[in-house]
Order: sequence, then structure tokens, then C-alpha cells
Amino acid sequence: MRNLTLLTIAEAGRMLRAKEVRSVELAEACIARADAVEPLLNAFITRTPELALEAARAADSELAAGLDRGPLHGIPIAIKDLCATRGVRTTAGSAILADWVPGDDAMVVTKLREAGAVPLGKLNLHEFAYGVTSNNPHYGPVRNPFDTRCHPGGSSGGSGAAVAAGECFAAIGTDTGGSIRIPAALCGIVGLMPTYGLVSRTGVTPLSWSLDHVGPLARTVEDAARFLNEIAGFDPADPGSARCPGFDAAAELGRDIRGIRVGVPRSQVEGVQPGVAAAFEAALGVLRHLGALVVDVEIPLLDAGLRLNILQAEAAAYHARWLRECPEKYGEDVRALLLWGMTFTAVDYINDLRVRREFTAQVRRVMEAVDLIAMPTCPAVTCPIDSTADGAYRYGALTGPWDHTGQPVISVPCGFGDDGLPTGLSLAARPFEEALLCRVAHAYERATPWHDQHPPI
Amino acid sequence: MRNLTLLTIAEAGRMLRAKEVRSVELAEACIARADAVEPLLNAFITRTPELALEAARAADSELAAGLDRGPLHGIPIAIKDLCATRGVRTTAGSAILADWVPGDDAMVVTKLREAGAVPLGKLNLHEFAYGVTSNNPHYGPVRNPFDTRCHPGGSSGGSGAAVAAGECFAAIGTDTGGSIRIPAALCGIVGLMPTYGLVSRTGVTPLSWSLDHVGPLARTVEDAARFLNEIAGFDPADPGSARCPGFDAAAELGRDIRGIRVGVPRSQVEGVQPGVAAAFEAALGVLRHLGALVVDVEIPLLDAGLRLNILQAEAAAYHARWLRECPEKYGEDVRALLLWGMTFTAVDYINDLRVRREFTAQVRRVMEAVDLIAMPTCPAVTCPIDSTADGAYRYGALTGPWDHTGQPVISVPCGFGDDGLPTGLSLAARPFEEALLCRVAHAYERATPWHDQHPPI
Repeated sequence: MRNLTLLTIAEAGRMLRAKEVRSVELAEACIARADAVEPLLNAFITRTPELALEAARAADSELAAGLDRGPLHGIPIAIKDLCATRGVRTTAGSAILADWVPGDDAMVVTKLREAGAVPLGKLNLHEFAYGVTSNNPHYGPVRNPFDTRCHPGGSSGGSGAAVAAGECFAAIGTDTGGSIRIPAALCGIVGLMPTYGLVSRTGVTPLSWSLDHVGPLARTVEDAARFLNEIAGFDPADPGSARCPGFDAAAELGRDIRGIRVGVPRSQVEGVQPGVAAAFEAALGVLRHLGALVVDVEIPLLDAGLRLNILQAEAAAYHARWLRECPEKYGEDVRALLLWGMTFTAVDYINDLRVRREFTAQVRRVMEAVDLIAMPTCPAVTCPIDSTADGAYRYGALTGPWDHTGQPVISVPCGFGDDGLPTGLSLAARPFEEALLCRVAHAYERATPWHDQHPPI
Repeated sequence: MRNLTLLTIAEAGRMLRAKEVRSVELAEACIARADAVEPLLNAFITRTPELALEAARAADSELAAGLDRGPLHGIPIAIKDLCATRGVRTTAGSAILADWVPGDDAMVVTKLREAGAVPLGKLNLHEFAYGVTSNNPHYGPVRNPFDTRCHPGGSSGGSGAAVAAGECFAAIGTDTGGSIRIPAALCGIVGLMPTYGLVSRTGVTPLSWSLDHVGPLARTVEDAARFLNEIAGFDPADPGSARCPGFDAAAELGRDIRGIRVGVPRSQVEGVQPGVAAAFEAALGVLRHLGALVVDVEIPLLDAGLRLNILQAEAAAYHARWLRECPEKYGEDVRALLLWGMTFTAVDYINDLRVRREFTAQVRRVMEAVDLIAMPTCPAVTCPIDSTADGAYRYGALTGPWDHTGQPVISVPCGFGDDGLPTGLSLAARPFEEALLCRVAHAYERATPWHDQHPPI
């Protein structure tokens, strides 16, 4: 029998509809896989196998009755524990919310349920999503399925590890400075940060309201695109929510990419690890081979070393009360970051907002001449969990600027860099041009073997 | 001969087109009037009579040749000295910019020139628009034409005094916490703060970018509405600019107001001066008599005493460099306010932004049940210039909240309050509903004698 847990969503969906498999079998396979690897990976904070099997049985009944909810119907997925789930505790990776059992689902969870997805549980993460290693002091570190001595990236580290290891078919992540794309790159899977406002954040514990994005981690571009379609949509309860009628991230999948103009901010690629640089240059070669026009671009504010503390200040604003009432409940790293955030003045913040606006305008101008911007997702592959204290910040060096511009960015596996560990290709598109973004990423994926290189675990 | 300087723009426009008057005569009348009253009022910082006469002659030629630029063609107006004027110094009421001669016009000035308006010069204001008395330490205090011992309100005090006294037919003002509406109310004229984003701020020295509005002060609602039509319009160079195709503030002038629902936040009316309260209640009586439905409303955050320091922080951000380099060049009051603005943290500011969003949502909900909100514009009439140190803040108590919601608000004369001095009726509409706002204000104006009560000066 085929290993069900490494099917793509598209493949599993075809088998479900051909009656070659049942949702319950898919869920059981994921549950068994998690039973086997969780002692090593620690990707979940809370597993809900009974609820999953119940949802899978419901999906099987509906599909048998001809009620088809679309591409996620009957597909086992998992949810970053930053997203509220009705009746299932939602910790945000924190001790402060260790016993919080929400009365309502986050909007993104509601949409997944309506799409017939089968939630397997709640995924581990960096405490309050504020860090890039997922080395969680309260629920234990998440480990990278490609090397369990190493971290999976973060903050959606549980999402990255679980999807890469076949514990679920896809997962919800969130991205404020790279938290979807970093674990995707470091775990060798696809991560898609949608345009700011495309997916509702209602019911998702905020890190930084002007930067927070919700999006999927999956094993292929097509899976990520179709997953995104199910969770996108205007929500008046989210002040950042955008209207985007007719949105379809999968609309251009399969079209060739001849003539697509891909800009490379060359100065940003300097200084990345040698293996990462080599994989990135090879990826550019593949894009050229597929007919894309690869050109160098300059984004002056990026070249000058964009330093914005908007995230730090907004995170401190959200956490101010807890910081006063129970500072001891935070892990050391997150507490230090939050206290740092308290030191910025309103004038600092306002000036940063102005620089962000200028940076966004610069990028928009550059993207009048190119359709996408390509970079390595991270400047380095993963590293041992206990060696990250100094180097961790760098993982977000190339992802963070895109949270500020609010453009959609995808990370696709582009092979293996230093130490033979996964590395990702980052492609950024103009706002709401997810269809073009996924088309190019899909073409790249089809032309390379990387999405089929599963972890040894 | 009729006193040309007290014509409305509508009347002057009819006379121009009937060849009963020339633009040059209108300009000469205003210049003569200013020659007479400026020693008392000090409404102008820079007068440009030669340029005005040149523009007036050009307008006369065009009109004679059948080229009609619309309602402002040939009309003498004046410009708050916060707005850049090409080749004419623009001080922003400050010593710091005392010698600044801009190379470009502000967008609003460009639009006025294209509309054929005849600029008479640059109007005095509170230093950097940061205060409500226009007691300017560098260019001298502006005085109220109804009582020259008293201030005209501010920050657009020169605009209020000059329009009320017949030194110009209308003027540009700016409003960040009430700076159009306060001088309009205290000088017995009409002030219209448009919806946030409707009029470009390009070339206008910022006070607070998320709160700054540009709009007209005039002697009638119709004049204000038509003036606004000429200066409204999208401007990509202003990040707050809004698209509003087909905008026409004058579209509903003359229609009756039967059935229009007017909400009164009763708690806000308590505590205003007795004469102001009496004039306001009389105004509500007039609205009822005209068929409007006047009802009490509650806006909880307003009732709780909305305290936001967004203006203070944004102003400090704009001025930070000068505050460091030349603090001695500011007047005492403005320097103290700017330094105060430096004390707010990013967390304070972010929390204020959240409260502002909640407040705006509250007002929007209240305005599902009513079409307009009525209040006294200011809780008090003007007072002697040297007695305002403690009381000045109160002048903006009822105006400030509307800058935060970004809704259009008009102040129309509603008679005379304490000490027989002018007081204003404030009406606020939903965003971009200037047409409804002006319709109701116009109906009120037609039913009352107040716009014809000119100052004794």
C-alpha cells in the first residue's frame, strides 16, 4: 500500500473521489504517523485524534452522498496553536494561555471546517509567534525532520515539521516577519504568505496587527494555492481585511512562464551561506530555462539595511498588560523582545511607518519593471537548536521586509544547501497577484525534484 | 455703491458674469478693506496685492473672452500660510520658515489657480497650526473682528478673521483638531472640514498626517460647498488621498430636509456656556421646524471623555529634527506641546490608534440610525487674547473627535452666545456625504439671519 501520508492534497482528493481511499483512512494514517514521529519532532501541542476521526467520518458520508465541499474536503490538516479552536485549548505557545479553551473558532478555522478539512490538532510554535526557532520553553522545542538536532525554523515550526514529516497534508501558519516562509524553507516544503488582508486574522492571537498574515504550509504549490483559496475572504471583524472578489490563487497553474520578468536584488543575495547561494543560482537557472527573464534590480532602502521596529512596538502594545501582571510567565527570549518593544517612542514608531511607506513605494516602482522578485528565503539552512542564540535573527533577514510591504510571497523548496539541509526559493509578487506567483512557483516545482525529497525520519 | 467685500461668492459670480462688476474691482475692494482693517486684525502675514490684481486682470480677460473657469473664477480669496505658494514666502506661522519661498504651489493652491481664483496673500495662523488662538509670537496675534480684544480661534485664525471682516471672499484653512471649525464659529462664518483624504495635503506643512484636513472658510454654506468642489480630488502624492469620482458637495443644495435624522450627543452639550447652549437649542428648534427629526444619541467613548494623543505624537515626529537643532525658535506654547509629544511611547500611540478605530466604529454604528450629528462647534465664545492660557484647550473639546473619525463636519453661524459673541452649530455627516451635510446646513442658514450679521469693525 502506498504511503498515504506523503500524498499531495490534489492526489488524495482524486483518490477520495475515485473511492480509492476514505478520509478516515487518511486521518488514521496521519495519526499513526504522528504517533511514530511526535516523540522525535514535538510538532503538536495538542492532538485531537478522536475529533479528527469524527470529522473524517462526516466527510466520508458527505462525499458518499455526493456533497463535495472542494479540494480540502476530507483532507487531514493541522492548525498553528495561535488560532482559536472552539472547545480545544489554544495556547499560542505560551504559559499564559496554557488553559485557554476558546468559545469560538478563529475565522480561518471556521472556513477550514466549512471546506470539509479534517483538523488533527494544534501545532507547536515559537512562544506567541515571536521568534524564528520554535524552541518553545513551555511545550518543548520543535525539531526538524531533516535533522532532529536542528530547529525547524519558526514561528510556525510545528506547521513546517508536521507537513514535512507527513503528520498532516497541510497546515495553517502565520507570518509577521517570516514565520510561514522560514519553516517552509528550513523543512523543505512550500509556504505561502498571502497579500496583507486577504485572510482574516479574527481569532488569531496577534503578534503585530499591521504585519500579521495567515496562510498555508503545504507540500506543493498547487496544494498551497487551493488551500489559500478556501481560507481567503473579506471579514469585517478584521480591520485589516481586504475585499478581493473573484480571487483564485490557482487560476494560472500550468501556464508556461515565458517572458515573466524576475528581478533579483543582487545585494541581498551576497552574504548568504555558500550552499544556499549555489542552490539559489541554480534555481535562477531553472527559471531562465523555463523562459523567465531574470534581471538584477536595486531597492535602495533594502540595500541600505532596512531597520524597522514596528513589529517590536506593536507586539509590546498587545502584551503590555501581561508584561506588567505576570512577566515571569514568558520565556526569557520573548520577554526580552517585548521589554525592548516598550522602549520605542511614538516618534520612533511614526518615523518607521513613514520609512515603511517609502519602502513599499520603492518596491512598487521596481515592480513596474519586473513581475516577481526572487531571493533565497533564508540566508542559512537550519542549525542545532542550542546554537541559535546569536544566529537566529538572520533567518528572518530576507523575509521581514515583505511583511512590511504586504505583498504575497511564496517559499518553494530549491534543493539542499550547506550540510545537505533544505533551502528555499522566495518569490514575491505584486499585491493580490497570487495567481501569477503560484503559476511561476508551480512551473519551477514541476521542473525540479525538490518537492519529492522527503525527510529521512 | 454696494459694499462689494460683503457679497457672497455666488452673488459676486453672478455680477461678474452680468458685467456688473469686474474681478479687478472685487480685488481692489478687498485690498482697500484689508488696508483699513489689517492694523486692527493682523489676519495676513504676507499680502500680495500686485499679484492679486494681475490675477484679477487675467480673470477679467478670460471671462470677457467667454472662458469661464467656474464659481471661483475672478473671486478674491486668501490662503492660510501653512500652504506652499510658489514664489511667495510661506512661513507656517513660524520663525523657522520665516524666509522660505517655495518653488512649487501646494496642490490646493494649484487647484485654486486653475479655478481662476484670485489669491490676495497668506493668512496668519497659530504657529505651525498647533493651537486654537492664533496668538502668534512671531507675526503677532490675530484679532477677532467681532471684538478686537479677543482671539479669532485657530489655528486658521487669519482665515476666520479675514473672511468675516470682508478682506477676502473665502479662505483656505486646515483642520487637525478643529482648526477650520473653531475660527469659523468664533468669527461667525462657515467652516467646512471635508472627509479625510478628499482634499490633497501635498505642499501643506503637516501637523499630524493622520488627522490633517484642508478645507474652506466662507460666508455661506453654498460658497463653502462650491469652493470645496474646486479643491477636492485624488492626489497620488498624498498617501491619505481618497478617490471620490463624481463628488459634488453642492448637489443637494436647496432640497428640503424633511425626515433627515439629526442625532444630539446630549452629554456633550452639557457644560457648554449658557449662551452657547441656548443658541444651540434654538438651532435644534429651527431644524425641527424645517422637518428634521432630532433625537438624542449616545457615543460611549465620547461620553467617557475620549483622550487621544495621536496628534501630539505625530506632530513631535514631524518636528523632531528642528526641536533638537533650534528649540529656541519655537514659541513657548508650541515648544511645550512638541516636547510633550516626545514623551509618548510607541505602545501609547498604538493603543490610541486602536481606541480611535473603536471610536470610529462606534460613531459609524450610531450613524446607521441618524444622518447627522449636531453639537455646538465650541463650548465657549471667544475671550480676550491674554486670558486664554488656561481655557484655550476647551475650544477644541467638541471638534477634535471628528478629526479622528475623518468624517465631514461643517460649522455654521447659529447666532450669538455669551457676551453677544458669535457661536457655531456643528453638523457631522458620514464620510463623503458632504452633499447631504451642505444641504442641511444650507437649509438651516436660509431659515436664520445669522450669516448676514457682519462684524462691527
